[in-house]
Amino acid sequence: MRRYPHAELHARPLTFVSNTATFGRIRIESTRTMTLDPVLAHIDADLPRATERLLELLRIPSISTDPAYKGDCDTAADWLVADLLSIGFNASKRPTRGHPMVVAHSGGEGPHLLFYGHYDVQPVDPLNLWDRDPFDPQIEDTDNGRVIRGRGAADDKGQLMTFIEACRAWKSVHGTLPANISLFFEGEEESGSPSLVPFMQENAKELTADIALICDTGLYGENTPAIITQLRGLLGEEITITGPDKDLHSGMYGGIAMNPARVLAKIIAALHDDDGRITVPDFYNGVPELSNDLAAAWANLHFDAKAFLGKVDLSEPAGEKGRSPLEMIWSRPTCEVNGIWSGYTGDGFKTVLPSRAHAKISFRLVGQQDPHEIRNNFRKMVQDMVPVDCDVQFHGHGASAASQMTTTHPAFDRARKALSDEWPHPAAYVGAGGSIPIAGHFKDILNMDAMLIGFGKDDDAIHSPNEKYDLSSFHKGMRSWARILDAISK
Amino acid sequence: MRRYPHAELHARPLTFVSNTATFGRIRIESTRTMTLDPVLAHIDADLPRATERLLELLRIPSISTDPAYKGDCDTAADWLVADLLSIGFNASKRPTRGHPMVVAHSGGEGPHLLFYGHYDVQPVDPLNLWDRDPFDPQIEDTDNGRVIRGRGAADDKGQLMTFIEACRAWKSVHGTLPANISLFFEGEEESGSPSLVPFMQENAKELTADIALICDTGLYGENTPAIITQLRGLLGEEITITGPDKDLHSGMYGGIAMNPARVLAKIIAALHDDDGRITVPDFYNGVPELSNDLAAAWANLHFDAKAFLGKVDLSEPAGEKGRSPLEMIWSRPTCEVNGIWSGYTGDGFKTVLPSRAHAKISFRLVGQQDPHEIRNNFRKMVQDMVPVDCDVQFHGHGASAASQMTTTHPAFDRARKALSDEWPHPAAYVGAGGSIPIAGHFKDILNMDAMLIGFGKDDDAIHSPNEKYDLSSFHKGMRSWARILDAISK
Repeated sequence: MRRYPHAELHARPLTFVSNTATFGRIRIESTRTMTLDPVLAHIDADLPRATERLLELLRIPSISTDPAYKGDCDTAADWLVADLLSIGFNASKRPTRGHPMVVAHSGGEGPHLLFYGHYDVQPVDPLNLWDRDPFDPQIEDTDNGRVIRGRGAADDKGQLMTFIEACRAWKSVHGTLPANISLFFEGEEESGSPSLVPFMQENAKELTADIALICDTGLYGENTPAIITQLRGLLGEEITITGPDKDLHSGMYGGIAMNPARVLAKIIAALHDDDGRITVPDFYNGVPELSNDLAAAWANLHFDAKAFLGKVDLSEPAGEKGRSPLEMIWSRPTCEVNGIWSGYTGDGFKTVLPSRAHAKISFRLVGQQDPHEIRNNFRKMVQDMVPVDCDVQFHGHGASAASQMTTTHPAFDRARKALSDEWPHPAAYVGAGGSIPIAGHFKDILNMDAMLIGFGKDDDAIHSPNEKYDLSSFHKGMRSWARILDAISK
Repeated sequence: MRRYPHAELHARPLTFVSNTATFGRIRIESTRTMTLDPVLAHIDADLPRATERLLELLRIPSISTDPAYKGDCDTAADWLVADLLSIGFNASKRPTRGHPMVVAHSGGEGPHLLFYGHYDVQPVDPLNLWDRDPFDPQIEDTDNGRVIRGRGAADDKGQLMTFIEACRAWKSVHGTLPANISLFFEGEEESGSPSLVPFMQENAKELTADIALICDTGLYGENTPAIITQLRGLLGEEITITGPDKDLHSGMYGGIAMNPARVLAKIIAALHDDDGRITVPDFYNGVPELSNDLAAAWANLHFDAKAFLGKVDLSEPAGEKGRSPLEMIWSRPTCEVNGIWSGYTGDGFKTVLPSRAHAKISFRLVGQQDPHEIRNNFRKMVQDMVPVDCDVQFHGHGASAASQMTTTHPAFDRARKALSDEWPHPAAYVGAGGSIPIAGHFKDILNMDAMLIGFGKDDDAIHSPNEKYDLSSFHKGMRSWARILDAISK
């Protein structure tokens, strides 16, 4: 999941279309008689059983990035196939070079909708910071209500189940779905989605629908649902600096031998200048300046940076000088160190001069920044900083450009109204700082628009210890999808 | 073990004393009739059994720095006590707040000698680079002769057993030892020796002898034994930078939140200037310039830096500009990164913005550098570089000044002659780049001189994967000690 709770109210003027209009390739069924209210009532009554189903899925430790959990990813895919078969979908597990995809089709009448989610989860380290076994999920009472605690609760198993449960409720009440629904789940979202593009290319016909729905994002505020309309891109790089051919004794070689940990530190320190700008050559090519309209809209949001940072024990924006906090999060590119390691990292002390030093570094991209060009320039910059007797190896971890949704597609407005019916506050069109490459792929490969709607919250601790998903997010998420299916199928 | 194979031929003029002189507190026994030759013959004949005993000790994984191996350190101490009791020593395990000491006394006539060694070993990671289980040692045939392969083979179990086996041989042949011998083994040498000084202070009377013997160093060359006369000091520091109070999602917070891994990289990068000099304020206070005599002596050694570095796949000295390779290793202080870690370090990728970043950093000290003053200045420098919203914590890992032996003690010259009788080339007085704080402690706490003699080799890979000890080092080491005991007891 890549979630963006503090996203901007989008400045694009909204266009409203008539409920009777035909939009895109969606054929409007004038004979539909199914009603929404009993579906919502069924969801309310079935909540305990829906929760049990989610807990079952959460018990499968489907960590995609760690090869040790390969079998568990497979098990999670099997679980989804079985669950979808049980509610009448034509579902199957589809092999890839990595973890399998799950594809399912309902067939039937109405517009063709393709729902996307991912069944893989983030690693759980540092394990000692969890209050419980990450894969022994539980419902907990907290000061802010009941939560489902466990790895994947919010990212993305809880969210994808909101859609499946909405379909289950429609089927239970009416025996059929209001639309022709396909589901598409991947198991590599948390590890760069290496199989995604080839699979979409090879199965383009099967996966193409009228519009894509994605549930891997968050609410805008506690009671304000959101539809994401722009996302940052993501470029991941792993570098390994090698000096001596083995770990050396720092008494014997210290002072004369090159230390790759020092070389790595120097490289990382050089990636930002004193103003917090990224120093990779030509990095800012294609980065747009904030328009006056957007700047005015963001100023009107009265974003409380102190409160946002205070939640994680920080107090001051630490990004580029001269940029507002919202720009830092939403519209400026970044370069972050996600991990570094070298030498002895255990308890106590070891006077070793390490042979190798490693870093995982990622860039968030905006506007027209070209991830491939940036990768090349980054590698050349690093290569130029590596001294004699050191060698550098690069390993790429995915590269996706920023993306921008077509909010003029009429489904956007209908979904926004449906969400506004469910929640206390009207739904907002927002942009955000994270990356969901799939949204761009739907456009580029399948020529489909994608609508990103999710129910996560700020404090869900996704990618962190003690991840949770509010039971209210799960419940109102199901109800929201039931409403959206109704609205965009009419 | 801290070993210094490429150490300097010491420039101090050598003084030769008569064999009949009384030196220090050593009372010369004129009635001694025991002969050396049958002792050496016994060592030769007993080599297979001596090797078996060493392998038994090497099978105990006494890694002192890792709390998981606490029980194994205890087992290694028990093993030594049992072995020493079996050859007539009054031996006992002595508790400390950390791992136990082993102290043993032979009693009897002759000068009182205290032998020191350590039974603890370095950690074994990265384990995947070992060709065999580090704690399933084995004799291997190599192109350079037979070696004992396993963690601790050279550092220091193999070396300390050379002395015990020499004692065993004297006892077997003559029923007694040529001197009044005490043994003192610690189990925390590889983890900063936290219990050593208090134990020496509390047991000063029991441990004080006429001279200390230490076997934890190396040969000067393939066939040239060495007595170490000067050592660098060692200061270890661990720093932890904390930013946000938990790991964050780099899409949600990247660009606005402080990243402690970047802060750490900046600090490490700032520890050396462009000329390779260390930037800690006042760091070079007490660092002596090389005397003309010593500079001339070193130039005469024709040290082959290319060959020395070539063994570990390096080609150029990477230390302070304007310093010779030998200065870099022997007479200049250093600052090295021994370990760094932060964020996600597993397989694959995790777009985390880490909460914490850690480094283990050590300094080798020379001349009159004050480790405590340097620790304070280092901490202040780091503290000053830590930005708003980050916090730094320090953990000290031992602090010892450089030390200088009193080579005018007559035992030095007798030992040098005894070593020269055993080896193809005469023994050399050498200095070195590592640190053996115990040598300074013997002087400071017990007012004893210490003589450091060892039989390790350049390629023993101590502190690295695939550590070994040449069978010839083990064999000739035992014979050397048998000769030294004879020589300094006459």
